[in-house]
Amino acid sequence: MRFSQSLIPTLREAPANAEIPSHVLLLRAGLIRQLGSGLFTWLPLGVNVLQKVERVVREELTKRGAYEILMPFVQPAELWKESERWQVMGPELLRLADRHDNEYCLSPTHEEVVTDLFRNNVSSYRQLPCNLFQINTKFRDEIRPRFGVLRSREFIMKDGYSFHLDEETFDATYQAMYDAYAAILTRLDLDFRAVEADPGLIGDGDSHEFHVLANTGEDALAFSQDGDYAANVERAEAITEELRPDSKKDLTKLATPGVTSIESLVDFLEIDIVSTVKTIIVEGKDSPIALVLRGDHELNELKAARLPNVVQPLRFATEEQVLDAVGCKLGSIGPVGLEIPVYVDRAAGVLADFYCGSNETGFHLSGVNWDRDVSCDNNVDIRRVQEGDPAPDGSGPLSIVRGIEVGHIFQLGTKYSRSMQASVQDANGVNVFPLMGCYGIGITRLAAAIVEQRHDEIGIDWPTEASPATLHVLSLNAERSELVRTTSNQIYSDCMNAGIDVLYDDRPERPGVKFADADLIGIPHRVVVGERALNEGKVEYRYRRGETSLVEPSDIVRRLNA
Amino acid sequence: MRFSQSLIPTLREAPANAEIPSHVLLLRAGLIRQLGSGLFTWLPLGVNVLQKVERVVREELTKRGAYEILMPFVQPAELWKESERWQVMGPELLRLADRHDNEYCLSPTHEEVVTDLFRNNVSSYRQLPCNLFQINTKFRDEIRPRFGVLRSREFIMKDGYSFHLDEETFDATYQAMYDAYAAILTRLDLDFRAVEADPGLIGDGDSHEFHVLANTGEDALAFSQDGDYAANVERAEAITEELRPDSKKDLTKLATPGVTSIESLVDFLEIDIVSTVKTIIVEGKDSPIALVLRGDHELNELKAARLPNVVQPLRFATEEQVLDAVGCKLGSIGPVGLEIPVYVDRAAGVLADFYCGSNETGFHLSGVNWDRDVSCDNNVDIRRVQEGDPAPDGSGPLSIVRGIEVGHIFQLGTKYSRSMQASVQDANGVNVFPLMGCYGIGITRLAAAIVEQRHDEIGIDWPTEASPATLHVLSLNAERSELVRTTSNQIYSDCMNAGIDVLYDDRPERPGVKFADADLIGIPHRVVVGERALNEGKVEYRYRRGETSLVEPSDIVRRLNA
Repeated sequence: MRFSQSLIPTLREAPANAEIPSHVLLLRAGLIRQLGSGLFTWLPLGVNVLQKVERVVREELTKRGAYEILMPFVQPAELWKESERWQVMGPELLRLADRHDNEYCLSPTHEEVVTDLFRNNVSSYRQLPCNLFQINTKFRDEIRPRFGVLRSREFIMKDGYSFHLDEETFDATYQAMYDAYAAILTRLDLDFRAVEADPGLIGDGDSHEFHVLANTGEDALAFSQDGDYAANVERAEAITEELRPDSKKDLTKLATPGVTSIESLVDFLEIDIVSTVKTIIVEGKDSPIALVLRGDHELNELKAARLPNVVQPLRFATEEQVLDAVGCKLGSIGPVGLEIPVYVDRAAGVLADFYCGSNETGFHLSGVNWDRDVSCDNNVDIRRVQEGDPAPDGSGPLSIVRGIEVGHIFQLGTKYSRSMQASVQDANGVNVFPLMGCYGIGITRLAAAIVEQRHDEIGIDWPTEASPATLHVLSLNAERSELVRTTSNQIYSDCMNAGIDVLYDDRPERPGVKFADADLIGIPHRVVVGERALNEGKVEYRYRRGETSLVEPSDIVRRLNA
Repeated sequence: MRFSQSLIPTLREAPANAEIPSHVLLLRAGLIRQLGSGLFTWLPLGVNVLQKVERVVREELTKRGAYEILMPFVQPAELWKESERWQVMGPELLRLADRHDNEYCLSPTHEEVVTDLFRNNVSSYRQLPCNLFQINTKFRDEIRPRFGVLRSREFIMKDGYSFHLDEETFDATYQAMYDAYAAILTRLDLDFRAVEADPGLIGDGDSHEFHVLANTGEDALAFSQDGDYAANVERAEAITEELRPDSKKDLTKLATPGVTSIESLVDFLEIDIVSTVKTIIVEGKDSPIALVLRGDHELNELKAARLPNVVQPLRFATEEQVLDAVGCKLGSIGPVGLEIPVYVDRAAGVLADFYCGSNETGFHLSGVNWDRDVSCDNNVDIRRVQEGDPAPDGSGPLSIVRGIEVGHIFQLGTKYSRSMQASVQDANGVNVFPLMGCYGIGITRLAAAIVEQRHDEIGIDWPTEASPATLHVLSLNAERSELVRTTSNQIYSDCMNAGIDVLYDDRPERPGVKFADADLIGIPHRVVVGERALNEGKVEYRYRRGETSLVEPSDIVRRLNA
């Protein structure tokens, strides 16, 4: 690739609306440009990155028995109505009508289409397991697209779907896809974690997310330093190892004028927050429901949403609903004497002599004890784990890091095969609904996640397998030197002939401009062709941010192939 | 690729709604399946074909200095309003609105987006010429999609766009793209023609179409067997070499009761159709306009649409309009005495003593002569050329063949750069609008065109560079023979290790089924592993429809790499 002929519009300054490093750097290094809200064009260097990432993904999937197909991006509404997702999906599913007023949507995912393909073409157990994937454009009409290509509306995704007669072959494929994702991220030289994830509404079995670690990640991940435990904080079980001490104090009502939060209670009474509990009221199917947590703990809303009789999706009770059900304001609620269902988090359940609201505005209680003063029968796990918590598998204290979700593998069970009547005959001639798995990895998102993790103050540091080129050749002041010109051209053509992809900076720009662009773009191998070194028959070679060495021009291909 | 694990649902019978060979065979060989009207899924064998075609396209473009980008499929309406195509395009432009009620369209083409990209990122003549392409999904909401993937609504296309300061660099790039297209079709082993084409409404300069020759092609192409002339029949100039003979007869009015067409006139009077003319009335800006052709010739509507004062697009006058302007029915019109503008085709203009309508229902004229009876001042080329016509460049008689348009290269001039204000500064600091070129080649269409040209009664005959696999290995009765099984597996893994892509038919199916599928799918190299030959240490090898030879299993990789 000749820099002068390609379109690589590098920028000195960060564009105004770019908030995170990958968005800034992909724009500055000339890999992407925005067309509209959540719509991006990939320029030549960017396309190279996408194609290399796609190659890695294809290779790792194909070698594990997945077969590539390509399904339409525009999908008939009928299929989505069969699975009932037409009704369930919100406005992120972009709907449209064709010239005959038939309804369609732009696909955010392809469960319906692949299940339709399957039911029309597979009828016997002998054709199972069947594992299909595609790399294709997707669209999600995000209400507020942001973070550049990390959360755009139109994006490229690899989505895969497998069909199985039994758990055994399903488990084998699920593991193979898990291994493929780990291999992909390993080849891309990324620091990543596979974590247990909440399956959400899509399934009810195992589910794993693959996260690229980065400070700007939207997700918090909990993992044990000493063991194998790793889970999305949303999913991680909170364990309580302490036992409840004996009660020592009497239940006492304290006047706490103006105190309406745990923080102000702690300040007012000069007590430890760990000796307090807070009570949160959420909507229930029959009556409001109270959730009790230790004062310093945070509610895990996904866990709470799964409690019996809690409405889905989780909704917090309004001031009015609380007043109606409890008779006091939100800031004064406590478990004692409540006449609605009360769920007590495990960590709150091991407290003794604790402080809490009194259900009377302006007062709190001290010396409260479970069983003696209030029932603790509904003892559940409803809090978010935090740094230092014990791992649920006993493998030591948890650390919390932030990650960018780039992949997710799911058990779908028979949700789609059943709702869309995609049955096959088993060996006994009986119609059965196959088990399905679903495996996604974001291609454009992964390109952004790479940059999010691998950059420094001067630019990007591409892993070899995703770099826009293997080698960056900088030709310095070639317009003044025949020797520089011919040597640069020779290196370029030698590399092309050897199948090494090169970004050849042949522009009539100052050396400073070329060095700055090379740092920004971040191709791992760099050769500088300048007259001074050439007078001694050498060019300068550097690998990543390492030391520069002088090498013979004819030695470059050998060095790169080594 | 293992046949047993992939999804290759071959069919014995042609599906009911498939009209042309490529549609039938791509379905039957298990390369595609229909999802909805004009929407197709490509199955694993089909994806292989697309990826190989894409590789050929990429290689030929890249080596000629074109750079790959990737633009969004969903495009903001604003850009299309700037170029005024939002208003001009019909319902084939599928329009939609997002959750915020902003207007978008699904891209049928990308002139607006690439011009917007250009104006935002290129400002100096030093960055020209600039030649960008993408391989991406397109959508055209065809009113009646048909012919499978040859004319689907969603399809994959390579579209390229170039920007130039002057004619000279434009011409060089246009020629390079012409050469690239010819090289692509040559590598795909196709019998094709590059023909002069009508630029339509998209530009007004040179335009060439690339056609794959096939009897089912939608276009007629005229070319001279002895010379270089080749043009779409729509575009081909019709030359008349004859001179007008002297008149010998008097103008006579004949009663022709019930005669309302040239065919019935010829029958009624028992005359040669070549001695008749027919008169067609089209709408004009001020008054209707008469077009006169020899009785056996067909109007070329594109040529007629370019005549002065003819309305665009061309519309034929209604019975009522004709009655109003001429005073008779459609079947009785003739040029003599007409008081509206009359254009006479060149071939009609060299007739003497001819027959025509009299502008009076129930009568025709005989012995009509130009200049004596009616003016022939407006002598123009408005007919379609036909087999045997002289080529306009004097290179002999024309032959007419049918072709499938797979590529089209255009001069856009400054249509988009001017309407979208995409100027650059030239060497003197003056803002100029660059010349643009536009280069399209249909990827999915090309895959279908290959089949349309290269098939016989038993199946497809893939060119090597587009074949779903290089080698088809048929393992016969492997379930009964350890030797067959191990030898087949060995050949498969040897080939995979050598980078040769194989379709390995490892199914427990009868040999007859496997042979029929192999014939249908049409992979060029075939190896049959059966016990009889194996007892002598051999397997059967065949290339295309050629002779079978016995070879040693270990010799296959060498043979294929040769």
